[in-house]
Amino acid sequence: MSKKSIAVILSGCGNRDGAEIHEATLTLWAIHKHGADYQCYAPNIDQHHVVNHLTGNKMDESRNVLVESARIARGQIMDLESFQAEAHDGLVIPGGLGAAKNLSSYAFDGPECTVNPATKQAIRTMATAGKPIGALCIAPAILARILPGITVTIGQDQNTATTITRMGGQHVPSLHGEITIDHTHKIVTTPCYMLDSRVDQIGDGADRLIAALLQLMAE
Amino acid sequence: MSKKSIAVILSGCGNRDGAEIHEATLTLWAIHKHGADYQCYAPNIDQHHVVNHLTGNKMDESRNVLVESARIARGQIMDLESFQAEAHDGLVIPGGLGAAKNLSSYAFDGPECTVNPATKQAIRTMATAGKPIGALCIAPAILARILPGITVTIGQDQNTATTITRMGGQHVPSLHGEITIDHTHKIVTTPCYMLDSRVDQIGDGADRLIAALLQLMAE
Repeated sequence: MSKKSIAVILSGCGNRDGAEIHEATLTLWAIHKHGADYQCYAPNIDQHHVVNHLTGNKMDESRNVLVESARIARGQIMDLESFQAEAHDGLVIPGGLGAAKNLSSYAFDGPECTVNPATKQAIRTMATAGKPIGALCIAPAILARILPGITVTIGQDQNTATTITRMGGQHVPSLHGEITIDHTHKIVTTPCYMLDSRVDQIGDGADRLIAALLQLMAE
Repeated sequence: MSKKSIAVILSGCGNRDGAEIHEATLTLWAIHKHGADYQCYAPNIDQHHVVNHLTGNKMDESRNVLVESARIARGQIMDLESFQAEAHDGLVIPGGLGAAKNLSSYAFDGPECTVNPATKQAIRTMATAGKPIGALCIAPAILARILPGITVTIGQDQNTATTITRMGGQHVPSLHGEITIDHTHKIVTTPCYMLDSRVDQIGDGADRLIAALLQLMAE
């Protein structure tokens, strides 16, 4: 049997303006740990903005989401426009504010957010094909915006949980390293840095999420 | 007993011009997994250059090593100038070309390389204090330049092994996830992406390196 292939959508490189680096890396680690392979993707668009991660201040420069995501992917990354659901058995979206600023406008528009077209297309085609989708941290909000009626977790934050509900989703509270599985829609989510976490707890969440995703592929 | 504190020196954010992201993240993960705490540091200097990780081409911009390293550290990072050996029980330097371009000139000058003064000071004061030091991937070359007579591994690359020897060190070949321990000098090294590796193998190497570092603290 050939290895399962999991697509990973990155949103930049750094938790304040891109993909959260620990969540992204530990997602890739968990995929390999469970004997699967991954292919990273990112949209070829400018970041919403660039944040100095030392000071928290906005920097007067622009960076491209695909180019910066390539740092996490060690150069092995594809433009999300080229995504084909047939090529993969599952899809995962790590968190970080890039999910809420680059892959969607969730950080600014909440329940009325728009989702990047290539991201929306990838999620919809995977869901239509009945293939499982995982999301970490704030990324479940993107899924809830596109796939109404799904059950997800973003941890304990009441405002975000309420917004999930307003978008037509169901929210289940969770703690460090826990996952929520929506068997009907084949969605797995875990809170990661939506809770104040140690890095090994991010690993626990990513590990369980990938294990559940592979299990859903086998069902 | 209070938790052990391990200092981690980052060299940017991305394997081609900074710290290797998987090695850095999995070092932090392993430190937390083994019940210790970390404090990240980086020198407050410009990167040698900025590389587009999608194309491999040099970009016409400049970035600061401390500011970019803050992406991996989620903002919790200190200027390496403020490093005090008394504050920590051990020190780790992840790899990536940032170790060979920003923390030292190894990528350009090989055995005659210079080492960034703050990096040199941190390594020397820890070694003088008898505290263990770990290095991943190409970072052992920096240690070999500063601490003559140490035994390290950088995997299987014969050119790098020869250069280690020319700097007065001893080289032990190693495979994926293996570590080399120099008990006399309290140095632990692991090859990581000096070998063509899967991400879980990087995790294995980081895990074993941190376990050995904590063991050396107890000896």
